Amino acid sequence: MDLAIQADDVRAAAERIRPLARRTPVLTSAGFDAEAGLRVSFKCENFQRGGAFKIRGASNLILSLPGSALARGIVTFSSGNHAQAVAIAARHVGAPATIVMPEDAPRSKMEATRSRGAAIVAYNRFTQVREEIASRILAETGATLVPPFDHPMIMAGQGTAAMELLEETGPLDALITPVGGGGLLSGCATIARAMNPAIRVFGAEPEGANDTFLSMQAGQCVTVPHPDTIADGLRAPTPGQLTFPVMRKLVERIVLVSEDEIRAAVKFLLLRLKILVEPSGAVPAAAALFRKLPPGIRTLGIVLSGGNVDFEELARY
Amino acid sequence: MDLAIQADDVRAAAERIRPLARRTPVLTSAGFDAEAGLRVSFKCENFQRGGAFKIRGASNLILSLPGSALARGIVTFSSGNHAQAVAIAARHVGAPATIVMPEDAPRSKMEATRSRGAAIVAYNRFTQVREEIASRILAETGATLVPPFDHPMIMAGQGTAAMELLEETGPLDALITPVGGGGLLSGCATIARAMNPAIRVFGAEPEGANDTFLSMQAGQCVTVPHPDTIADGLRAPTPGQLTFPVMRKLVERIVLVSEDEIRAAVKFLLLRLKILVEPSGAVPAAAALFRKLPPGIRTLGIVLSGGNVDFEELARY
Repeated sequence: MDLAIQADDVRAAAERIRPLARRTPVLTSAGFDAEAGLRVSFKCENFQRGGAFKIRGASNLILSLPGSALARGIVTFSSGNHAQAVAIAARHVGAPATIVMPEDAPRSKMEATRSRGAAIVAYNRFTQVREEIASRILAETGATLVPPFDHPMIMAGQGTAAMELLEETGPLDALITPVGGGGLLSGCATIARAMNPAIRVFGAEPEGANDTFLSMQAGQCVTVPHPDTIADGLRAPTPGQLTFPVMRKLVERIVLVSEDEIRAAVKFLLLRLKILVEPSGAVPAAAALFRKLPPGIRTLGIVLSGGNVDFEELARY
Repeated sequence: MDLAIQADDVRAAAERIRPLARRTPVLTSAGFDAEAGLRVSFKCENFQRGGAFKIRGASNLILSLPGSALARGIVTFSSGNHAQAVAIAARHVGAPATIVMPEDAPRSKMEATRSRGAAIVAYNRFTQVREEIASRILAETGATLVPPFDHPMIMAGQGTAAMELLEETGPLDALITPVGGGGLLSGCATIARAMNPAIRVFGAEPEGANDTFLSMQAGQCVTVPHPDTIADGLRAPTPGQLTFPVMRKLVERIVLVSEDEIRAAVKFLLLRLKILVEPSGAVPAAAALFRKLPPGIRTLGIVLSGGNVDFEELARY
C-alpha cells in the first residue's frame, strides 16, 4: 500500500506554515551526557506558538483550504493542544472554528482555546464518541474537519519539527517523538529517514496508553478503549489508519514509560534544562532518561512536543 | 574618575570565556506584545552552564590567571550562582576551590556547588561578614579571590551577555538587567552603549534590596544592612566600588519591584514562555510586566540572569 505522505509533502509544508509556525530553538543537555555518554538535542516545541507542535499540522491543512471552505468554518476534536492550534490558524485566516473537547481536558487548555475565539463543544470521553459529535456539526454547517492526526496534511505539517531539528543538528543516530495518534511520529519519521537514511526512529508511549505499541506487535491497529495516563495529549485509543502504515514501515520500535517516569522527566527538564514541558511532551525524554532505547545510540534527537501544564498540576509533583 | 572597564574589555572577555560559557538562546515573547505593543527579547542565561550568567565573569577572571596562582587555589564568597560558576571554572583549570556561602542559601545551589568538587565554608549572613572569612582563608593559603562582582574581569565577563543579545537582536530601544552588586549591569551597560549609543539602560532591584536605587539617588554607595527579598542573588547590601561609577554614568534609572511582582513574573515566564527563571532572574521581567519603565520603549532586551530554583520553593507560589 502507498504511504499517505512522502518527504516532499513535509518540505512543502515547511514553506506553507511559515507565516504561522515558529522555528523553535534546539537545546542540548549536559545532564544526559554525564550518565550514558549520550548527546541529546531537544527540539523545543514547548516554545511553539500555542505551546505545542500542533500548529504545524493545523496550519498546513488550514492554509491550503480555499476561501469558500474557510467561510463555512473549521471543526475539530482534540484533547487540547490541537484545539488551540486550530483556533490560532482559523483566526489567522478569518474562519469560524468549533472545537469538540473532552470536558475533563486541562483547564489551561480550554481557557486558551476559548480566548482565541473558538467555540467549544464539551463531551464526556467515557460515554460519548467525539467523532460522532463532530460529524453531526459538519453535516449541519458544511464546515471542514481538521482532524488531530489522521490526515496527510496534518502528518506532513508535524514532520516539519524533525526537519528543522535535523537541519540544525546534522545527522543523528536516532530520533524519538511521543505517540498519540501518530501524526507527529509518522511525519517526523518520513522526513528524518529521507534526510538521513541511517537514522533510527522511535516512538514513546505511556504504558497506560500503549495502543501503538500493541498495534506494532499485532501488525494492525489495536484499540485501547480507555487510555489512562497523565499524558493527556497521548490518549488517542488507536493509531490512525494513515499514520499506522507509515510508523510500521519507518519506526524501529515503540518504547513504553510509566507514569512515575513521565513525572520524573517533567521534573528533570524543569530543574536541569529550565524548561516547562507537559507530561505528553516529556514522554520521549523519560524513555531516554530511563534507558528504554536499545544500545549503540550516541546522538539522539528528542521532540519535546508541548509545554501546556496547569500550575496547580505541576505543584502536585 | 576612570571607569573600571571599557567596551574592549568585554570584547576580550567574549573571546576568553568561549571554552566555558555557552552562547545562550534569545527568546521573544508574544505575551508582552499584546499588552503594551512592547517587543521583548529575553537573553536566556537560565540555560547557561551552571544555570546562570555567573560563569561569564568567573571564567573571564580564572582563565586569565597564571598556573602558579591556580595551583594555590581559588576562593570566593557567594549566595550561590557565582559559587557554582567558580566551582565549574576552577575544576576546568584543575584549581582547588573554596566557597564561602551563607548557611541559608537555597539547598539546590549548595548541592550543585558541592557536586562540582568545591569545598564549602558556611556562614551566618546576619552575624558574620563573608569578606572577613574569605580574607582569613586567602591569608592562610595564598589563594586568589574571585569576588562575585567588584572586579574588572568579572564585570567585563558579565557584559558578554548583553553583547551576545545585541548581536542577535540588533539595536534595541532599551536594555534591563537585575542588579545585585552591579557586576552584570555595569558590564552590560558598558558594551550595550558602545554597540548602540542610543540604547537606554535600566537596572531592576527588589524593593527589599534597593541599595543601588538608593545609591543612585544619593550619588554615592549606600548600604542596606539586611536586604530582605526572595531574590536571593540580589541581596548584596551595597553596590561595588568599581561597579557603581559605571552604573552611575551609563544607567538611566534603577526601577523597583515588589515581592509579589517578582513571584508573578516567575509564574508568567514559566506558564507563558515555558522557561524556569529564578526570582533574581525574573526581577527585570517583573519591571516590564508591571510597567515600571518610562514610556517610549518599543523594543526591550531583558537579561534573564538565572534559573536555579528549588522545586519545593516553586510549588509554594
